[in-house]
Amino acid sequence: MIDRNRRSLVLAVGSAITTSTVGLPAWAVPDGRKLGYAIVGLGGYGLGVIIPQFKNCQHSKLVALISGDPAKARRVAAEYGVPQHGIYDYKNFDSIKDNPDIDIVYVCLPVSMHAEYTIRAAKAGKHVMCEKPMAVSSAECEAMIAACKRAGKKLMIGYRCHFEAHNLEARRLARAGHIGKLRYFRSEHGFTMGNPDSWRLKKAMSGGGSMMDIGIYALNAARYMTAEEPISVYAKETTDRNDPRFREVEDMIEFQLEFPSGVIASCMSMYSANQNHILLMGDKGRIDLEPGTRYDGNKLWVGQDRGNQITPPPGPGQTQWAAQLDHLSLCVINNREPIVPGEEGLRDIRIIEAVYRSAREQKRIVLT
Amino acid sequence: MIDRNRRSLVLAVGSAITTSTVGLPAWAVPDGRKLGYAIVGLGGYGLGVIIPQFKNCQHSKLVALISGDPAKARRVAAEYGVPQHGIYDYKNFDSIKDNPDIDIVYVCLPVSMHAEYTIRAAKAGKHVMCEKPMAVSSAECEAMIAACKRAGKKLMIGYRCHFEAHNLEARRLARAGHIGKLRYFRSEHGFTMGNPDSWRLKKAMSGGGSMMDIGIYALNAARYMTAEEPISVYAKETTDRNDPRFREVEDMIEFQLEFPSGVIASCMSMYSANQNHILLMGDKGRIDLEPGTRYDGNKLWVGQDRGNQITPPPGPGQTQWAAQLDHLSLCVINNREPIVPGEEGLRDIRIIEAVYRSAREQKRIVLT
Repeated sequence: MIDRNRRSLVLAVGSAITTSTVGLPAWAVPDGRKLGYAIVGLGGYGLGVIIPQFKNCQHSKLVALISGDPAKARRVAAEYGVPQHGIYDYKNFDSIKDNPDIDIVYVCLPVSMHAEYTIRAAKAGKHVMCEKPMAVSSAECEAMIAACKRAGKKLMIGYRCHFEAHNLEARRLARAGHIGKLRYFRSEHGFTMGNPDSWRLKKAMSGGGSMMDIGIYALNAARYMTAEEPISVYAKETTDRNDPRFREVEDMIEFQLEFPSGVIASCMSMYSANQNHILLMGDKGRIDLEPGTRYDGNKLWVGQDRGNQITPPPGPGQTQWAAQLDHLSLCVINNREPIVPGEEGLRDIRIIEAVYRSAREQKRIVLT
Repeated sequence: MIDRNRRSLVLAVGSAITTSTVGLPAWAVPDGRKLGYAIVGLGGYGLGVIIPQFKNCQHSKLVALISGDPAKARRVAAEYGVPQHGIYDYKNFDSIKDNPDIDIVYVCLPVSMHAEYTIRAAKAGKHVMCEKPMAVSSAECEAMIAACKRAGKKLMIGYRCHFEAHNLEARRLARAGHIGKLRYFRSEHGFTMGNPDSWRLKKAMSGGGSMMDIGIYALNAARYMTAEEPISVYAKETTDRNDPRFREVEDMIEFQLEFPSGVIASCMSMYSANQNHILLMGDKGRIDLEPGTRYDGNKLWVGQDRGNQITPPPGPGQTQWAAQLDHLSLCVINNREPIVPGEEGLRDIRIIEAVYRSAREQKRIVLT
C-alpha cells in the first residue's frame, strides 16, 4: 500500500505539469474510502474497457450508469452491482446532482458530446474524468475547464498511458540520462479502420479522423516523453477521399514537432495501416517501445538496439486503468490536481488544430 | 554463372529507371573479360572498403591507384599486385589516358573533388564510377553527366545498396504486393560523428553535413523502395553550433517527402545518434530493415511485426561492392546504361538542395 502510494508520488513528481502541486503527506497516505464513479456511455470503451476495471481499484467503485438504452443499462447494472437508483438516461442526467453516491462522472461518449456532459456533470456538482481527445475544439476544452473551475470540481482527461508501466519506465530512463541527451523522438500510431459506419468517421461526432483517435497517442507521447512543449508544427495529410471510410475525416497525417531544446519529433497517424511505436533517440542510445501504448503486451528496449529488453517495475495500479481511476479519486480525497488535468487535454487539442491547419495550408505553424 | 546473370537481369528490370534499356541477350551472357579499375583516393573507403573487393569480382580487377602519398601508393600497389606503371598522383592523373589497362576510374575522394576527377577521367577516355553523394551541387552533377556524355563514357554512382541482398528483397516484396498498398515510408540514418577534424565536417570539402554523408541513404531508399519521385519536401534542421563538430555543417535534419501516389516518407539524418532503419508500411503489413544499409549484418522482417525474419536470396554478387563493381564492368562490356547512372546521383543532389532550402526557409518546397 505504501509502496503503491510512493509510486503515485514518483509519478506525479516525474510530471513536468504538476511538480509544484505535489508533496503533502496527505497525498501519500489516503484514507481507505472508495469514491463513486458514474459512467456516461456504455459503448465499446465505457462498457468493454472501463467498467470491468473497478474490481482492480483501491479507491474507486462503480455506482451509476448513464445510457440511452434502458435494457442495456439494467443488464450492465445487474452484472456489476449498480443499484436501480444509479441508472440514468440522457434526459434525467442532471438529476445525478441528487445522488450523493456519485463523486465522479466518467465521460465515455463520442467526442462531440464530451463538452456538454462534462459541463453538465460539473454543474451537477460532480468531478469529471473525460475521455481523450478532450473535445472537438480548443474553445470547447476551454469551456469545460472553466465550468469545472467555476463548480470547484476536478477535471481529468483519460490519458491512460501516463499510468502504464512501460511508458512510465521509458520516461524515467530518458530523464535519468540512460540514453544521453535526447535528440529525436518518433512515434507512429495507426490501425486499419474496418467499419465505415463508425461514429469515429463522422466528423460532426469525432471532430476529425485518425489524428483525433489514434494520432493523439503519438502527439501526447512526444510531449510526455520529452517533457517539453512544441514550438512549431508541420503536417502533411494523405487521404483517399474515394475510400468510403474517409469521406469526412482524414486517413494519414505525418506531423513534425520542434521542441525548444532542439529535439525533433516525427509522428505518423493512420487509419489505413497498423503501427504502434515510440522511439526516443539520444546521443548515447535509444529507448524503443513497440507496441508502446496498447492495452497490454507493450514491450520496452533500452540500449543501442533491441538486444536489451526491459521488464518495467509494476505501474502505480494493478492495471493502467485502475491507476488512472484511482488517481482522480485520490486527487479528490487529497484535494490535489490530477497529473493530466483539463489543461493537458487542451494542449493536445490546440496542437491538433495546428496540425490540421498546417496540413490545410501546407506550411509550418508556430505554436503560441 | 547463369543464375547470377539472371539476377542482374531481374535487378535491372526491377528498376524504374532503366527498364527500357534492358533485355538484350548480350547483357545476360557477358564474356569472361575483366575490366581494369583505377582507384582515385586511398582514404578509408577507397583503401579500406573498395580495393579489397576486387578479389570477389568476376568482371573487374584493380590495375591502377591514384594517391598524393607515394609511399602509401607503393605499399598498396605491392599488396594488391598493381604494377609500378599503374601508380599515379594528382598531378600526372591525366596521363591515365595512355594506360590501356584502365577501363574505369572509381572516384573515392572527398565530395568537393568528385566533379573535377570525374570530368578529367572522362576526358582521359575512361568510364567513371563516382562515390555518392555525387557532388557538392546539382550544377556540378550536370557538368559531370555532360562531360561523360561528350566523351561517350559511362557514369555510374556508387549506390551499393541497389546491389545489397536485403534491400533488393525488400523492394521486390513491396512491389510484389506482400504488404498491400504502400502507405508510408520511414528511414532514419545516423551515427555519432566522433572526429571533429574529419573532412566530412568541412563544408568546402563535403558540401554539407549528415545529410550528404548518411542522410542520403534514407533519401535514396525512399525513392528506391517506393519506385516514385517525390513532388515536395519539408525539412527541419537542428544543429548545436557550439558543438565543435558542427561549426560548418548540419547535425540533424528531419525531412518529409510527398510522393505522387500519396505515400509519405519521413526521414531523419543525424550525426549525433546511431540509427540505421528502413520501414515500409502497407495497408496489409510492413517491411522492416534494421540495420538496413550497413556493410553487413542487415536484417529484414516482413509481416505485421518482427515475428517473421527473412533471409533474402543471395544478391547479384558475392558482396554488394563486388556486384556494384561488376555491374559497371558489364555495362561497359555490353554497352548498357548502369541502373544507378549519373542522373540518379543528380536526382538525390537536387532533392538534398531542396531539403537544405526548406530547412533554411522553413517552408515546403515543391520539387520540379
